[in-house]
Amino acid sequence: MIRFNNDYNHGAHPAILAALAAENDNSFGGYGLDCWCERAAQEIKKYLDCPQADLHFLIGGTQVNYTVIAALLRPWQSVICADTGHIHVHETGAVENTGHKIQALPAENGKITAQQIDAEAGLYASSEIKEHITQPKMVYLSFPTEYGTIYSLQELTEIRSVCDKYGLLLFVDGARLGYGLGADGCDVTLADLARLCDVFYCGGTKCGALFGEAVVFTRPGLAEGFRSAIKQNGAMLAKGWLLGLQFYTLFKDGLYFDMTKKAVLQAMQIRQAFREKGISAYIESPTNQQFVILEDSIMKKLAQKYIFEFELKLDDTHSCVRFCTSWSTTQEEIDALVADIQAL
Amino acid sequence: MIRFNNDYNHGAHPAILAALAAENDNSFGGYGLDCWCERAAQEIKKYLDCPQADLHFLIGGTQVNYTVIAALLRPWQSVICADTGHIHVHETGAVENTGHKIQALPAENGKITAQQIDAEAGLYASSEIKEHITQPKMVYLSFPTEYGTIYSLQELTEIRSVCDKYGLLLFVDGARLGYGLGADGCDVTLADLARLCDVFYCGGTKCGALFGEAVVFTRPGLAEGFRSAIKQNGAMLAKGWLLGLQFYTLFKDGLYFDMTKKAVLQAMQIRQAFREKGISAYIESPTNQQFVILEDSIMKKLAQKYIFEFELKLDDTHSCVRFCTSWSTTQEEIDALVADIQAL
Amino acid sequence: MIRFNNDYNHGAHPAILAALAAENDNSFGGYGLDCWCERAAQEIKKYLDCPQADLHFLIGGTQVNYTVIAALLRPWQSVICADTGHIHVHETGAVENTGHKIQALPAENGKITAQQIDAEAGLYASSEIKEHITQPKMVYLSFPTEYGTIYSLQELTEIRSVCDKYGLLLFVDGARLGYGLGADGCDVTLADLARLCDVFYCGGTKCGALFGEAVVFTRPGLAEGFRSAIKQNGAMLAKGWLLGLQFYTLFKDGLYFDMTKKAVLQAMQIRQAFREKGISAYIESPTNQQFVILEDSIMKKLAQKYIFEFELKLDDTHSCVRFCTSWSTTQEEIDALVADIQAL
Amino acid sequence: MIRFNNDYNHGAHPAILAALAAENDNSFGGYGLDCWCERAAQEIKKYLDCPQADLHFLIGGTQVNYTVIAALLRPWQSVICADTGHIHVHETGAVENTGHKIQALPAENGKITAQQIDAEAGLYASSEIKEHITQPKMVYLSFPTEYGTIYSLQELTEIRSVCDKYGLLLFVDGARLGYGLGADGCDVTLADLARLCDVFYCGGTKCGALFGEAVVFTRPGLAEGFRSAIKQNGAMLAKGWLLGLQFYTLFKDGLYFDMTKKAVLQAMQIRQAFREKGISAYIESPTNQQFVILEDSIMKKLAQKYIFEFELKLDDTHSCVRFCTSWSTTQEEIDALVADIQAL
Repeated sequence: MIRFNNDYNHGAHPAILAALAAENDNSFGGYGLDCWCERAAQEIKKYLDCPQADLHFLIGGTQVNYTVIAALLRPWQSVICADTGHIHVHETGAVENTGHKIQALPAENGKITAQQIDAEAGLYASSEIKEHITQPKMVYLSFPTEYGTIYSLQELTEIRSVCDKYGLLLFVDGARLGYGLGADGCDVTLADLARLCDVFYCGGTKCGALFGEAVVFTRPGLAEGFRSAIKQNGAMLAKGWLLGLQFYTLFKDGLYFDMTKKAVLQAMQIRQAFREKGISAYIESPTNQQFVILEDSIMKKLAQKYIFEFELKLDDTHSCVRFCTSWSTTQEEIDALVADIQAL
Repeated sequence: MIRFNNDYNHGAHPAILAALAAENDNSFGGYGLDCWCERAAQEIKKYLDCPQADLHFLIGGTQVNYTVIAALLRPWQSVICADTGHIHVHETGAVENTGHKIQALPAENGKITAQQIDAEAGLYASSEIKEHITQPKMVYLSFPTEYGTIYSLQELTEIRSVCDKYGLLLFVDGARLGYGLGADGCDVTLADLARLCDVFYCGGTKCGALFGEAVVFTRPGLAEGFRSAIKQNGAMLAKGWLLGLQFYTLFKDGLYFDMTKKAVLQAMQIRQAFREKGISAYIESPTNQQFVILEDSIMKKLAQKYIFEFELKLDDTHSCVRFCTSWSTTQEEIDALVADIQAL
Repeated sequence: MIRFNNDYNHGAHPAILAALAAENDNSFGGYGLDCWCERAAQEIKKYLDCPQADLHFLIGGTQVNYTVIAALLRPWQSVICADTGHIHVHETGAVENTGHKIQALPAENGKITAQQIDAEAGLYASSEIKEHITQPKMVYLSFPTEYGTIYSLQELTEIRSVCDKYGLLLFVDGARLGYGLGADGCDVTLADLARLCDVFYCGGTKCGALFGEAVVFTRPGLAEGFRSAIKQNGAMLAKGWLLGLQFYTLFKDGLYFDMTKKAVLQAMQIRQAFREKGISAYIESPTNQQFVILEDSIMKKLAQKYIFEFELKLDDTHSCVRFCTSWSTTQEEIDALVADIQAL
Repeated sequence: MIRFNNDYNHGAHPAILAALAAENDNSFGGYGLDCWCERAAQEIKKYLDCPQADLHFLIGGTQVNYTVIAALLRPWQSVICADTGHIHVHETGAVENTGHKIQALPAENGKITAQQIDAEAGLYASSEIKEHITQPKMVYLSFPTEYGTIYSLQELTEIRSVCDKYGLLLFVDGARLGYGLGADGCDVTLADLARLCDVFYCGGTKCGALFGEAVVFTRPGLAEGFRSAIKQNGAMLAKGWLLGLQFYTLFKDGLYFDMTKKAVLQAMQIRQAFREKGISAYIESPTNQQFVILEDSIMKKLAQKYIFEFELKLDDTHSCVRFCTSWSTTQEEIDALVADIQAL
């Protein structure tokens, strides 16, 4: 069976395993205070144009999301996000478990707009009973979104503008950041994110690392106490240098961008094959996740050879499924799938 | 100015002040362990047909809501409620502050249906990724709802049936319970609530008391540890007998029912007056809260003499406002308002 | 039976009941936004010499304690207090329930010293693993303490100085404040507290009110968002004017000070009677709580006529018990007890 | 410089890196639902004599500690532990952050006794104001302790007996479990822990893995919902098979026991060298952590070549420091240190 079900079913890029092996006889300081975390931060900062950026390396996405939110908000403050946002639908109420309400807005193609945020934040700003409702204090976006779509620079700039209007923090979940930056038509750079966001992260788990997420705080003072928050939330790896070494390896020579770009191009081949076969996308995605509408008999046929993710039943005979490429997807796997689609 | 803005703008029914004065020279045990709390529980239990009912007296509705929820749910469990539910929209995220997610369903006339709950709970029951989503474990209903509407016995029975199907607890917020039980067409009794709910409360704050809510646990063992939860959440009044004495006074001779019934009849007079004038209800309510659609000039005219609550702007020239009667509303106040409506 | 067991076994000073009765036909704005809360704040501010003081009226002491702490601290920050402090021993972990650790220091006579606080805060300040330990950010003191003792102005000034050294907030629990200010030898005034504390409260529940605590924030900006915290923690009374009216009545003509002073003088009569009989104090207290060491046969004898609070067994034949006077204690009750002590 | 500062300054045992490399071209199910987690559980269960044992693999110790505690306790329940316990002193209030109080008892040599626990739990059991204090519901022990000492089978059996008496859960933190089981004189086995504890874990981070802790629930039903707790607390590794594969490698042929036993024997060589030099232990430890009392000039001399951990200053000229061996310590490193001690 060939797995297209997600982008975290393989270990790590061989360069990372090689780096781990090369350092295994050495010893390092604990808890992220080591040379590799420093070097990794330096490598990433080369892309940020943000000298004051403060980087922290955590283990996984859910952990980053609730730790950042718990660290930055006061108890009565809430987070605005898309109703398809990962923190709202797939993190077992982790954010609420830290005490904060999520104000979910109806997403279109996984995205929310500056206008929607303006309206939601405006409700609070104009409320005469502010103490009876939560105070929206942060906007959470996923880039790319859970449906593979991406925000344009224009959209992010507008959202930043609304954030400034209401004093909201902008937090971008970049669990799949590489696949977004590598998308055809993406006009957003890491430097744009550093300029527009208060905090965002570059995902490693889904982008070639064994695990790990690089969190970037871009505003002076915002990360105050964050190392305490990391430890308190079980997110401080004793051997933190494992994270630093991985991110150093990913960013040193642009490997992060190369292998996610490759995966996006592979996804485009899948998209093209389905298109040519007249099989519609559920949502048009320019990144490594492709959501397509399959007739049941086709779904069954493909499932004999490929593992892909069932999303939802659309009608009596059709379902939405996800095909996902990753840094580890081989061209042979793509060729096989494309041929089988063409042969349908 | 005459206040129809809410049902908590006056102190208490004179019988309650008289009872407080009569006992002021006596001394009592603290923290709800006193003769008056006992007597109050006995009086209320006369209506419940539920010998095992376990009663606790708390101070206010928000406090009851989050304390009950925090006491009964495990950290990854969530509450299903209407998206107009008080815990979702007007309690500053108190439930989330205790760590629990609210799963809000679109309400119609302030109500949700057994079918909606079945679908929502069914999503979890059939999920293959249960550990990634919160587990719905409780249904929260308001009776009457925030829009003055009430559930029928049939509707509550169906909802109970869905709760049984999925192992959900049923929790009814009765902050305005008296006004619901006294509504024209209400076929639900306190004994029905005791039979169908796991826990519910009889509101005092809005129904003639200075403050206080009588919480009823109906299932053996469910209230285990609840006194600890009360104390931990700052809800244990040192002079708990003040709560017991008030509820004893309210329930001893049916005063609770009489004065809320009276308020409902007064609300019906207001409703009738608006109807006869061709002024539409925003939502048809058989209880003490009347939501009407006023043209701006009419709204301004009435606002010169009456205080009522602005709800929302409906279009350029119309708004929804609330007129609320209470146990303290006098017939003179009603007559004045009705006359002024007729004279519009 | 005559109750000396605590200072909250009676209702309220008659002046308060009279005030409630006088206002019962009037209607008021909800949630603490009313004329009586304003007037009460003005009356209390007359004693504070702190124009920027921001007052809020809550219902009970535990509620105030955890709400203030949760509102002011970030998640990894902790509270330093005496190991006899109410928040540490008698509030069912309410502070921890909001997520904050208490760092309890060994108390002497219910008090901790500036030196102890300096040492504890210094441990963090000099730690090289700050992210692994909680950050002390607040000092919690009780005035008077749980053992009836009081801090001198000199002691409070030294503690404030340590707070300034480490950037700690000073929070004084004044659940029994009146009895402390009225103690023989007390050289602390409300204005001193306003100058030295960041936040403190004047207790009503134990000092003549039915219930209620007046919380005073003394630093500009510190109370930002506190009304949201009040609501979120179930501490916002719908009929908040009940709190304002009570505190207005207590402070308008100094009733608060008169009746607590009276209770202290009564306690001194009890203390004197025990002393003359050769019965030792467990802790010397200049306030309304008297802790004495009773031989068992004497304890039993007194228990036939008086209710007092058992504290702990000291040896096979002696126990520590508490006799507590209050604003409601009558001279007849004192005379009876004194006579019975003398007759032992 | 040679590091004896802790047992987590190196990567992983070469067998683990080899296993990771061998599986890097394969793909696996996510979130711990994979063949390696299953196999690892099977290997560990061979030692447990506990067919119903339910194993879960998490990332780090702090994470395990608070996740287990939050999952098992109700909000007003607390944890009894030694005042030197890791959860009390070195986890940034992580347990309190989940809402639970820690009741710390004075430790002797890092340990607490059945008698102490009996007394503490007895205070609650006999209290007449149970709702005002937290309910102890769990005992947390470290094995070995933070000072390298171990509980005997007799001691653990007595503690279990007290737990049974009061309905307490027994939770053993085995972050360094291998070093404890391998200690000279240890009469406790994994099967004993499975029989006596409700939940315990076998540490990987400090015992040869890159990271990871294997949590063992021994009572049927106790782990209900625990996978939800794992996810909610950010402790569910996307590539959970990395944990399973590591623990499979550690336990398959007893590598876990062999390499920790080796480290203990190396620690004994250090201990012996200090003893022969007349340098006292701060606490006598039979495991891989050795706490010794060094005169300042000696400390400085050794610090020129070795990294060890400063613990505390004992007097003007002496300090307590820790020398720690681990699975990665080489005999050359030991020989060097021993020679340098002898040459002092």
